[in-house]
Amino acid sequence: MKQSAIISNIFELPFQLPLEELFEPLLSTKDLLIERIISTGQTTPSGEWYDQERDEWVILLQGEAKLTYETGETYQLIAGDYLLIPAHQRHRVNYTSSEPPCIWLAIHGDLS
Amino acid sequence: MKQSAIISNIFELPFQLPLEELFEPLLSTKDLLIERIISTGQTTPSGEWYDQERDEWVILLQGEAKLTYETGETYQLIAGDYLLIPAHQRHRVNYTSSEPPCIWLAIHGDLS
Repeated sequence: MKQSAIISNIFELPFQLPLEELFEPLLSTKDLLIERIISTGQTTPSGEWYDQERDEWVILLQGEAKLTYETGETYQLIAGDYLLIPAHQRHRVNYTSSEPPCIWLAIHGDLS
Repeated sequence: MKQSAIISNIFELPFQLPLEELFEPLLSTKDLLIERIISTGQTTPSGEWYDQERDEWVILLQGEAKLTYETGETYQLIAGDYLLIPAHQRHRVNYTSSEPPCIWLAIHGDLS
């Protein structure tokens, strides 16, 4: 089907950001999710870990953040940094900047 | 398999850019390709169209570009703009900035 393109801008933020992290699906199929995540200082609650069923390829497009794997490695991320977080790689986000907000682009799926 | 993350930065360019557009796979599976494209003024040759087998979700992360669909719609893109180009949606790139270079992130796959 031929169609006109719908163009959006990933850096355009809502006028008022919620207190929680904002997860917005940009494209979703049965196998894949492309989402934008906006963080403004939130971190993974102490003692908790993300343990995801699917691989996640993620890029930080704005802001600064810190990511820790359960194995102990800690990664300081700046705008443009990307990595693949394999499924069930337990990880947490220790820090996200609020000025500017962190803008993440994440791709979830079978990426291995 | 648990492993240390390999972190790269999408804004880090090679010291010397080639004369041609640079296509670099960042992650490739049987179903999906995530690639970085760097353009420095190149455009689709006159009279030619991209006609791709797979859907492409693409975001321009740096620079400015102009995209035209065969149906006539023309889109001016700035950093952060993203869109889905359906498979076989014939399109061409009419303009890409060279200062700064265009940095694109493209996801190719079955996205519909």
